[in-house]
Amino acid sequence: MSQQVRQLAQRARVASRSLAAASGEVRKQALETIAQALEANQERVLAANAQDMEAGKALIEQGELDLPLLKRLDLSGRKFAGMVEMVRSVAAQPDPLGQTQSALELDEALNLYRVTVPIGVIGVIFESRPDALVQIASLCLMAGNAALLKGGREATRSNQVLAEVMLEATAGIELVPEGWLALLEGREEVRALLDQEGEVDLIIPRGSNDFVQYIMHNTKIPVMGHADGICHVYVDAATDIDKAVKIAVDSKTQYVSVCNAAETLLVHEHVAEDFLQQAVPALLQRDVELRGDERTRAAAKVYGQIKPATEEDWKAEYLDLVLSIRVVNGIDQAIEHINTYGSHHTDAIVTEDRVAAGVFLRGVDSASVVHNASTRFADGFKYGLGAEVGISTNRLHSRGPVGLEGLVIYKYILEGDGHVVDTYDGEEQRPFTHRRLDQGWQA
Amino acid sequence: MSQQVRQLAQRARVASRSLAAASGEVRKQALETIAQALEANQERVLAANAQDMEAGKALIEQGELDLPLLKRLDLSGRKFAGMVEMVRSVAAQPDPLGQTQSALELDEALNLYRVTVPIGVIGVIFESRPDALVQIASLCLMAGNAALLKGGREATRSNQVLAEVMLEATAGIELVPEGWLALLEGREEVRALLDQEGEVDLIIPRGSNDFVQYIMHNTKIPVMGHADGICHVYVDAATDIDKAVKIAVDSKTQYVSVCNAAETLLVHEHVAEDFLQQAVPALLQRDVELRGDERTRAAAKVYGQIKPATEEDWKAEYLDLVLSIRVVNGIDQAIEHINTYGSHHTDAIVTEDRVAAGVFLRGVDSASVVHNASTRFADGFKYGLGAEVGISTNRLHSRGPVGLEGLVIYKYILEGDGHVVDTYDGEEQRPFTHRRLDQGWQA
Repeated sequence: MSQQVRQLAQRARVASRSLAAASGEVRKQALETIAQALEANQERVLAANAQDMEAGKALIEQGELDLPLLKRLDLSGRKFAGMVEMVRSVAAQPDPLGQTQSALELDEALNLYRVTVPIGVIGVIFESRPDALVQIASLCLMAGNAALLKGGREATRSNQVLAEVMLEATAGIELVPEGWLALLEGREEVRALLDQEGEVDLIIPRGSNDFVQYIMHNTKIPVMGHADGICHVYVDAATDIDKAVKIAVDSKTQYVSVCNAAETLLVHEHVAEDFLQQAVPALLQRDVELRGDERTRAAAKVYGQIKPATEEDWKAEYLDLVLSIRVVNGIDQAIEHINTYGSHHTDAIVTEDRVAAGVFLRGVDSASVVHNASTRFADGFKYGLGAEVGISTNRLHSRGPVGLEGLVIYKYILEGDGHVVDTYDGEEQRPFTHRRLDQGWQA
Repeated sequence: MSQQVRQLAQRARVASRSLAAASGEVRKQALETIAQALEANQERVLAANAQDMEAGKALIEQGELDLPLLKRLDLSGRKFAGMVEMVRSVAAQPDPLGQTQSALELDEALNLYRVTVPIGVIGVIFESRPDALVQIASLCLMAGNAALLKGGREATRSNQVLAEVMLEATAGIELVPEGWLALLEGREEVRALLDQEGEVDLIIPRGSNDFVQYIMHNTKIPVMGHADGICHVYVDAATDIDKAVKIAVDSKTQYVSVCNAAETLLVHEHVAEDFLQQAVPALLQRDVELRGDERTRAAAKVYGQIKPATEEDWKAEYLDLVLSIRVVNGIDQAIEHINTYGSHHTDAIVTEDRVAAGVFLRGVDSASVVHNASTRFADGFKYGLGAEVGISTNRLHSRGPVGLEGLVIYKYILEGDGHVVDTYDGEEQRPFTHRRLDQGWQA
């Protein structure tokens, strides 16, 4: 098994070198060909997806799958067109490769360039959303990376057909060899993938906290991603209550099963009563189960409808219609709560006080910090990245929604004319000019 | 022990939050104060260094230390002024924090900014060069990171005095609390450091291959660095022989004990005889031991003076006056050799053929690729980064010499006015504007 996966990885390395040599035009054209192939094969894809959905429903009846997962699995309706749009949106992005990030003259005729290149071979293990496969593969292709993908078990049929359609679409393109995309299957292949240190350059796991933690602790390959999405909305003292209710409701209920949905609401004591008297009915009306601390339950004056929150609630990622609420003394306690219990993913403040907003945006140590908007905006497509390969809470390379820029690295290119270091470090001690150049690198 | 190191790390986290809030001016001024303190304490530092040198010489006599290591230990002569200059050079760099990397309007009054912030707490384990301590601490401070440093055993006295002088210098500066810099001692503290997942955000190991490999395999904290520096100079067919000899000699002999020194010379068969007849005497004259393949030994016509090279030589990082030489059929074989045996660090081509240069610079998968210049240029100071915290052969975050830019990450800041996702994803399906903004983020 390990041998097989290693061969896939090595084939992927070769494909990646070819992709890296393909011009931006060739990679964009390959994506347009994929978009058209998906449209032409809509029925075939949806038929496979319908089978997955049927099997999923049976699993729900057996209690082996929950409803939010089934919803993510569904490709029908608006989802299919959205998936194709995503491919074109990636192709419409500026080419991430061959970009000169800096150009510096070190001395006369000795010029240094920092130029973007692909990372290489990327392994992505993702949840049951089959549109994620298309998104991830498109981003990898556009950034010149080969992709080894393992999707959720529940989406097996959908994923297989989607990968087939994509590979059929690129089959005729010389600089996009077949090895650019491979589907892995089963847990053994995932374990083998995690062993491919040196062959695979990056692992991106998407899924439950436990799953991501497992991946992070069982590979020597760098891992990019996030375990938890424990996101907060903090309602500050100087808040517009209508705005705050709207943002709290959207952050919690707009799509409950995703990582940027809010799990905890923090409320400044000065506005707790006013805010909660509007927010609690609005949330209950949307079937949100509320769990509050004592002050919340007192302020809301609806004891019976707000269950007591425990320490565990502050650490919980519900991914469901559940919300914990805490009344805080002020912004400092809110920031401390978020930095302590949060997952450094996405956290919002609602306030009309610009100074307080600045304190929050600087002080909260999260990938996305938000002022007067929903946490649900933290997403690659909404952030204008074309699409996202995932959301990272790492503190290296990429943070927050990761699009094309997170899938490239750079190399330094130094061009001289016989220059040696002895001229600068030896007797002559010639100084460097270190002058910025306007022109990027030209091969 | 682990408890103690954890406390240092937590103190460092607090210091890092304070540093992050310090303006660029405060951090620059702190560095200038450090530079002046070093100058004022030159005798005290050199006295401690002289003790380390004495002890080092004794170790050499016992065969427990080699000469290149002792050379790195020495802070006297030009080295001291260079060390102080490095601090000022870091302070003269543009502020790496608070930089808006992108600004995008998502919709009316809904603006997204990507702004640089410190990584946080960085652990650096470095070799016996005490000037590295000053360099690394300066870079960390300027980038708002707290640093936990462990230097080489041979430099213990020098490091202690240098850290003391730096901490004395910053003692009066409010936003630079004492915890910004701590020295660890002994192997147990290093082991404890490697366990501080969550408390320490990044480990940078500098040292021997085995040492760096050990670190990489014994921590869950991200590691940035390079194990080997197996650098190549490839002499192409259309080469200027004088230039090639000069570059080969400099790459090998200018400073043999460093990672960007060349270890293998690859020579195109068409110029092998001409090149080697000049290069071999030039290298032998500088006491370089040569190890060549059969074709090298034949072409050079000095069999006796070139030992036979084995497969092991292609994989060797000598860090000494030894050079392996191989005659290749052409540029493709050279690129293949480098991508197979090299360490993706720094590799050079010498050629007057611009097309060949382009093929090499694109095809060689290394952090630095060089045309007609010495591999020895691959260094943060020479690359205009002010100084370097190390050289990375990672394929994520930072590659090549890592200066200030490699010590920061970013956060996304989203500012709205009550915006919710339902407006865009729900019935209304309002489109995003995704319009680039000229203005960076202002708190």
